[in-house]
Amino acid sequence: MSLVWLNGVPATEIACDDRGLAYGDGLFETLRVQNGQIPLLERHLQRLELGCQRLMMPTHKAQWQADVLAFAAELGTGVCKLLLTRGSGLRGYSLPDPCQPRCLLLGSELPKYPVERSTQGIALFPCATRLAEQPLLAGLKHLNRLEQVLARSEWQDPQYAEGLMRDTSGRVIEGVFSNLFMVQAGQLVTPVLSRCGVAGVMRAELLAAASSLNIPCVVRDLAYVELLKADEVFMCNSIYGIWPVNRLQDSSWPQGPVTRRLQEHLSLLWSTSSNAA
Amino acid sequence: MSLVWLNGVPATEIACDDRGLAYGDGLFETLRVQNGQIPLLERHLQRLELGCQRLMMPTHKAQWQADVLAFAAELGTGVCKLLLTRGSGLRGYSLPDPCQPRCLLLGSELPKYPVERSTQGIALFPCATRLAEQPLLAGLKHLNRLEQVLARSEWQDPQYAEGLMRDTSGRVIEGVFSNLFMVQAGQLVTPVLSRCGVAGVMRAELLAAASSLNIPCVVRDLAYVELLKADEVFMCNSIYGIWPVNRLQDSSWPQGPVTRRLQEHLSLLWSTSSNAA
Repeated sequence: MSLVWLNGVPATEIACDDRGLAYGDGLFETLRVQNGQIPLLERHLQRLELGCQRLMMPTHKAQWQADVLAFAAELGTGVCKLLLTRGSGLRGYSLPDPCQPRCLLLGSELPKYPVERSTQGIALFPCATRLAEQPLLAGLKHLNRLEQVLARSEWQDPQYAEGLMRDTSGRVIEGVFSNLFMVQAGQLVTPVLSRCGVAGVMRAELLAAASSLNIPCVVRDLAYVELLKADEVFMCNSIYGIWPVNRLQDSSWPQGPVTRRLQEHLSLLWSTSSNAA
Repeated sequence: MSLVWLNGVPATEIACDDRGLAYGDGLFETLRVQNGQIPLLERHLQRLELGCQRLMMPTHKAQWQADVLAFAAELGTGVCKLLLTRGSGLRGYSLPDPCQPRCLLLGSELPKYPVERSTQGIALFPCATRLAEQPLLAGLKHLNRLEQVLARSEWQDPQYAEGLMRDTSGRVIEGVFSNLFMVQAGQLVTPVLSRCGVAGVMRAELLAAASSLNIPCVVRDLAYVELLKADEVFMCNSIYGIWPVNRLQDSSWPQGPVTRRLQEHLSLLWSTSSNAA
């Protein structure tokens, strides 16, 4: 392991009675770090705060921000995974009182994805693993991730850069580690995440960007047959940005104009963050 | 913390990059230990092995058994929580190769539940938190337990010893930390756990006991209105055994004959284990 901090202090281990381990009782964020800067930091911190509220965990936004910026300064460029747990607890599900959360920061290199994924697009693997519908946890980036582990284990063929996940009712929801958008008759569409799925920070950024770029945009339920007939499809997350989808089962797509406009927006955002350092 | 072993060695901490922490990627067992003996050990180990197969984790049953018996000998009497994780992993959901699971054993005292819970029964809190339907994980005692954390947070009133959980379709499934049985016209009924829920070791023991005691028994879907009209209702787990339910919303029950027969079976089982030490 490379750079790891626990509650602001270098560490390699965490207490065995942490509830993050016992129950997946916590949240995480995956942050892109460029020259010590974090492009979408405020959105990440807002989502973390919202997650804490929904899981009834105390929030320490100013402290997280200070820790993560100090960590980013030391990391330079790479990925910072922030993992927030409810801290130690006795045996049993009752919330510990007092609750002393732990904030773990794990540094790693930026993944070396082939540049063609951004320029020529990716093939999407249609996962058989479905997302269960749990409105109480939907949208959160929490630590209960066995569905993603199972979905990611479905393919080893490197021609597939991501997998598509549907919910147990068959609706299109997201990728295994990304959100999904499609373009239909000039309108941007991304699935509702009120029953399951992770409300990604890059998704939120692109929804805001679409609005400022006057691209019509709607968040709604999305059927698989609709997706297969879309004009454009792309995946996004905070680390790689935007990958156009060029193939899913028998459907194929060229890279489209809306996807390109959003990629340009993102290039600008990332280069600005980088120059600011 | 009291007695804790990690892979057979005393420990207080675990690696920060363990996938149990990152994704809840693992399983657990909660074992009753009496004078160094574990009454239902074989059933616990079988369930753990089955869980590993379903999560594609390597199994080391002989090693777990040796570790847990050595741990029980040192603990004497209490609870041994066995927590098995997929071990360390890089960032990303792909299964680590090779996979080196970690086996954590956490010792604690037997909880001091009031004896009246077994003799006079308990009141059940009707939880609003529903269990999401995920057949791929149903039955497993895995580390994704946020639903139980949320459900247990719904009540603080100590008059409720357990909470009742239904699935998102409204079917009766289980307690927050127990399984549920009802008796209807002399027949024992316990819910199907193929969509959600934990297939408890005590549940399995009581199903087998019912068969040998010639108590008719069926595993099937169970509607909430049926439960409210049952002749007897009880909860069970490996630590406390059997608690009759005497109240749920407007329904109330005296302790019934089938519940009592199964409690007698269990008393015998536990005293035999204890004497064997």
